[in-house]
Amino acid sequence: MKRIAFLLVAFATVAVAPASGHPDEEASPIYGVTIPTGYRDWKLIAVKQLLFAGKGNQLRAQLGNDIAIKAFKEGTLPFPDGSIIAAIHWTQVASESNNAVLAGPFPGTRSFVIGSPVNVQFMVKDSKKYAATGGWGFADFTGGKPGDKALHETCFPCHTPAKDRDFVFTRYEP
Amino acid sequence: MKRIAFLLVAFATVAVAPASGHPDEEASPIYGVTIPTGYRDWKLIAVKQLLFAGKGNQLRAQLGNDIAIKAFKEGTLPFPDGSIIAAIHWTQVASESNNAVLAGPFPGTRSFVIGSPVNVQFMVKDSKKYAATGGWGFADFTGGKPGDKALHETCFPCHTPAKDRDFVFTRYEP
Repeated sequence: MKRIAFLLVAFATVAVAPASGHPDEEASPIYGVTIPTGYRDWKLIAVKQLLFAGKGNQLRAQLGNDIAIKAFKEGTLPFPDGSIIAAIHWTQVASESNNAVLAGPFPGTRSFVIGSPVNVQFMVKDSKKYAATGGWGFADFTGGKPGDKALHETCFPCHTPAKDRDFVFTRYEP
Repeated sequence: MKRIAFLLVAFATVAVAPASGHPDEEASPIYGVTIPTGYRDWKLIAVKQLLFAGKGNQLRAQLGNDIAIKAFKEGTLPFPDGSIIAAIHWTQVASESNNAVLAGPFPGTRSFVIGSPVNVQFMVKDSKKYAATGGWGFADFTGGKPGDKALHETCFPCHTPAKDRDFVFTRYEP
């Protein structure tokens, strides 16, 4: 039992370790952030919709690892080192089958669901390593591949307006 | 260590037990389903948007307990007993602060975020207890209070079109 517990702790540590432990995977330029293991199973922070001019509509979900979720719930700012926030972006499509069902009780209602994955973004908190960018390392992956350096140069400036919330736009929604 | 492990298992069992263990909380009519402990921390299945005629727009997230998530990922149908699916519905509002940020790189893009909670719904799988309704017990809570009997009489008929997916509309989105 002790050994199992140790292995579980070891695994959890690897899973949330930023920018490490995935030598075979590509890392984001500038920041060296790789896709965190198991991020799709992290807890939900909030959801958003974007009517993305010229790029189609998107449904988005923000997930957090346990350190980030605890900080969100307790209102801790700045976020502690080890916090990771994932933003999953999907295309949004109309669901005709849902609409057909909803037409009975709620005539005129329109339902939109996820179409396909677009990209996934990560913010990794390491106040020393990423001191020059508010303590956050950024990454943007499409189809498992990180975007280029030019793309990643836009991350931190774009997040600057949220400086009073430690550069995080998303708010936790109960 | 053994005792701690036992307590954790015992706690987890209580946390996912359908329609039990919460004597102080109100249960849904017909089905007797109470709000499952800790459901907000369950894993994400998918998100949706609803342009709800006459009721305003909504952003929605579907979460699942571990039994449900495993079934979704493995494509198991029917869902095993103990599966619980939660659907959280929020109002959707425009985010002018996000729009201001997006106007730089993506002119004309509009961002919508969660406004406030509307209601939360649950589907609890118990093939024996709920044999008359496809093996599912239903519940719809607004402000922590279950809706009335008339509301809950609409749950199962509404889900009937999804009979070939064990009455579950939502698909797991990676």
